[in-house]
Formats: sequence, C-alpha cells, structure tokens
Amino acid sequence: MNRRPRVYEGGAKILFEGPEPGTLVQHFKDEGVGFDGQRDGTVSGKGVLNNRISEYLFSRLTDIGVPNHFMRRLGLREQLIREAEMFPLEVVVRNAAAGDFARRFKMEPGTPLPRSIIEYYYKSAELKNPMVSEEHVTAFGWAVAQDLDDMVALAVRVNDYLSGLFLGKGLRLIDFRLEFGRIWNEHGDVRILIADEISPDNCRLWDVAGADGRTPAKAPLDVDKGGDTYREVARRLGLLEEGEVIDLKGSRSSGAA
Amino acid sequence: MNRRPRVYEGGAKILFEGPEPGTLVQHFKDEGVGFDGQRDGTVSGKGVLNNRISEYLFSRLTDIGVPNHFMRRLGLREQLIREAEMFPLEVVVRNAAAGDFARRFKMEPGTPLPRSIIEYYYKSAELKNPMVSEEHVTAFGWAVAQDLDDMVALAVRVNDYLSGLFLGKGLRLIDFRLEFGRIWNEHGDVRILIADEISPDNCRLWDVAGADGRTPAKAPLDVDKGGDTYREVARRLGLLEEGEVIDLKGSRSSGAA
Repeated sequence: MNRRPRVYEGGAKILFEGPEPGTLVQHFKDEGVGFDGQRDGTVSGKGVLNNRISEYLFSRLTDIGVPNHFMRRLGLREQLIREAEMFPLEVVVRNAAAGDFARRFKMEPGTPLPRSIIEYYYKSAELKNPMVSEEHVTAFGWAVAQDLDDMVALAVRVNDYLSGLFLGKGLRLIDFRLEFGRIWNEHGDVRILIADEISPDNCRLWDVAGADGRTPAKAPLDVDKGGDTYREVARRLGLLEEGEVIDLKGSRSSGAA
Repeated sequence: MNRRPRVYEGGAKILFEGPEPGTLVQHFKDEGVGFDGQRDGTVSGKGVLNNRISEYLFSRLTDIGVPNHFMRRLGLREQLIREAEMFPLEVVVRNAAAGDFARRFKMEPGTPLPRSIIEYYYKSAELKNPMVSEEHVTAFGWAVAQDLDDMVALAVRVNDYLSGLFLGKGLRLIDFRLEFGRIWNEHGDVRILIADEISPDNCRLWDVAGADGRTPAKAPLDVDKGGDTYREVARRLGLLEEGEVIDLKGSRSSGAA
C-alpha cells in the first residue's frame, strides 16, 4: 500500500500524491463494482485486474495517439498517472440499448442503436449523477462547447478502436463511460485527455458467442453479474494466464507483477 | 361545438378537420391543466381564456415574423390553424429554476439561470415524456440537426419577445414549452413553425410585484396554483375586462365572442 499523502478516495480508487509534480498514484480497490450507479459491490482481486486491464487499454490508446493520463504501472494495484483538472462529467457512449437507457426508452436490452449515442452525466453524488445536455453543461460552466467537441471527438475514436479490439476477442462493447481532464504544458497550452480508468467497471461487455451479430447477445459478461467478468476480460485480452490465480488480498500474485 | 370530423383529442385540446385542405380547427377544453406532466386538473372557462391568450400571443409573434400555425379565432373555444406535421418533441426554454428542473439540480425555485437553457423532451406518454438530448433526437430520427437549429433559433426569439412582453405586464417568464411542426409550400419547400398553443398551460409566469428583479419572486401566478392564473394573465394582457365573467360552460360569454 502506498504511503504517500492521500489526495482523494472514491468508491473504486484512491489517489495519492505522485513522486513528481503533476503526477498522481492511482490505487485500484476491490470495492465499487457496477455500472449505471450500482457501485456497492466488492469483488476480491478486481482492483488488481482493473489495474492491468486499464494499463493495457490506455497503452493501446496511446499507441493510436489518443491522449490519456496513464504513465506506467507501479505495482499490482497502482499506476502512475498525470494529474489533470477533471471535468465534473461522465461521457457515456452507447452502441446498443442496455441498463438505464433500455429502461428509459423501453427497448429490449441488446438492441443496436441507429448510430452510437453520446450522453453526458453530471458527476454529483448529491444529485445522483443526472443526465444532462450540452445546454446544461455550458450554461452552468462545467465545460465550454470546445471542450465538449474535443471530448466527443476522443470518445468517438475510443469507441471505434475499442469496439474493434473487443470484437476481436469475442466481446461486444455495448456501452462505456469515460471521464476527462485537462492539463497545461509549459507554454500554458491546454490539452484534454482521458482520465479515470477503462475497465469492466465502466465498459459493458457482452459475449458475442452464439449471437448472429444483430440479435441481442446473451450477457454472461455483463458487469452486473459479478466477479468472473474481470477475470474473463483480462484472460481474453491476454493479461491473465489460463489458471492464473489472483491473490484475494491483492498483495501479490502468481503472475507477473 | 364543432361538427367536423375529429382528427385528434389530447388532454387539453381537440383537433377537427378544417374547412380547407391544410387547415384544422383547434378546440380548447377546460381539462388538462398543468405543467411538468401534471395535467390532470380542470378549470372552468380555461379553454375560453387559453383560446384568447394563444390567439393574442401567436398574433404578436406573427407581427415580428415568427412563423406559427395560428390563422384566426373562430369562436369562444376554437381557432383555425395550419395543419403541420408535428415533431414528437417538446422544446422547453428556462430562464430561472422551477419545477422539475429545480428539483433535479436542487436549486431554489426562482434562481435565475446563468443563461437561458433549452431542453428537449420526447413526447411519449408511454415513456412519460423523458428529457432527451440532441444526440437522442437525431439518432432516433425524431428530427435532424438542421430542424433542431431552426427550432432553437425560433425558441430564442420567442423567449426574448415574450420575456419583454410579460415583463411589461408585471409578469416574469420563468419557463415555457413549445411544440413545432413543419409545412410544405406549393414548391415543396419545407418550413418549420410553432404549433400547439402559448398559454398559461405551457408558460410558467410569476408575478414580479414585490421582487427586486433578482431575488425569487413569490409565485401567485404559478399555473400549478390553479384557475385564477388564466383570468389574471388574460386581464394583464388586456384580453379580459375588469369584472368580465367567463361562462363556466364556455358556450357563451358576456364579453366579445
């Protein structure tokens, strides 16, 4: 466990001061399982797996030039990240109806959408993260229109890339949630980047096995279903050996550290 | 009561076939009082007053070149309108927090917004008219982006004009709801216009008396409060003589027909 001063603790992660200015250490907990606001579960070893999965996916996004906060993995549950000023928003990209969206529009879960739909949610536990529109975001000053344009452009790239990557592993990316921040370089120029994590905690992944690609797939990997999702996603991405055991306390592992 | 074939009946209005192609007769009922989905009340004489108020306000909008469906008043409860293909949307313009918006963002009712905020709601009784974003509207094909741009441009003009008009009568326009349709001319060109009605049933008006213009006003004219709102708004707009009685059955009136 990191001994640096704690900057922030959320449901699923803790942020500590980093070794250099402008950096943070992000620690992944086993708590805070869920999607659509259901974040009250705990899965032993989840933090270790999400740390690996997020490292892998952020690294691939770096490869294709999508700016993000990931710098390097530090240990089983920790990674070094760039400190960014966060927007108080969750940007959700939906490829098929599921969860709250399916309930809101009374659609069969798994129904493909006419096109991918982007939604904004205002991060406020007190207000229960309400869905908001660009009008709310800009009127209340949570971001300016250019910020939203930049976030949408990045979210669309991430959706294209991850949809392909996961499909190659037999997984359908139903929807996912991104958080964004901004950093300034030495010249004072601002840059928007993807922060937080990319893991089964904010990606809804369904197994395509048995589906013809158009009919709704069964949902054995829906994160609402619990712990095996994390292991299965890590295994499909090649991050977990067949039979590898994740230590339940997450303090060590039989696999690579 | 009109004897023509009935085309549609909603909570507050009935539409009949009009005397010429491309026209309808819009009949105002006393039922369907409310805002924010609370449309279950009845106020005797409301239909007569809303017919007059809507005639007056649409005529003023015509004066300033804002296209709308109003052609002329036919009687106590009826007006002739252009038949338009309706968008399944409610476009809400908010100048201050109130109603559902104040609850959603936990704001004190009457708090002025940083700027006017436009919201879209999908007209679906089954889905309970959910708030939607431009993304939902365009992805599901309820309107295209250009349609929304045209609606917003008109809604902003209406807001500016009506805010001024009502303020001149001691009323603060807190929020209002518009519905839009489109018509085609003989050349096949499409034009977007404002339809439905503009009345206390879809305008939230507060009395500015006693307020300093910045603090929340008391809300004696909030439409949720019931019947006197309609008479008071009509009186302030000069549409009802002091002491004029609206016949409760609405079949005749002591005033001008």
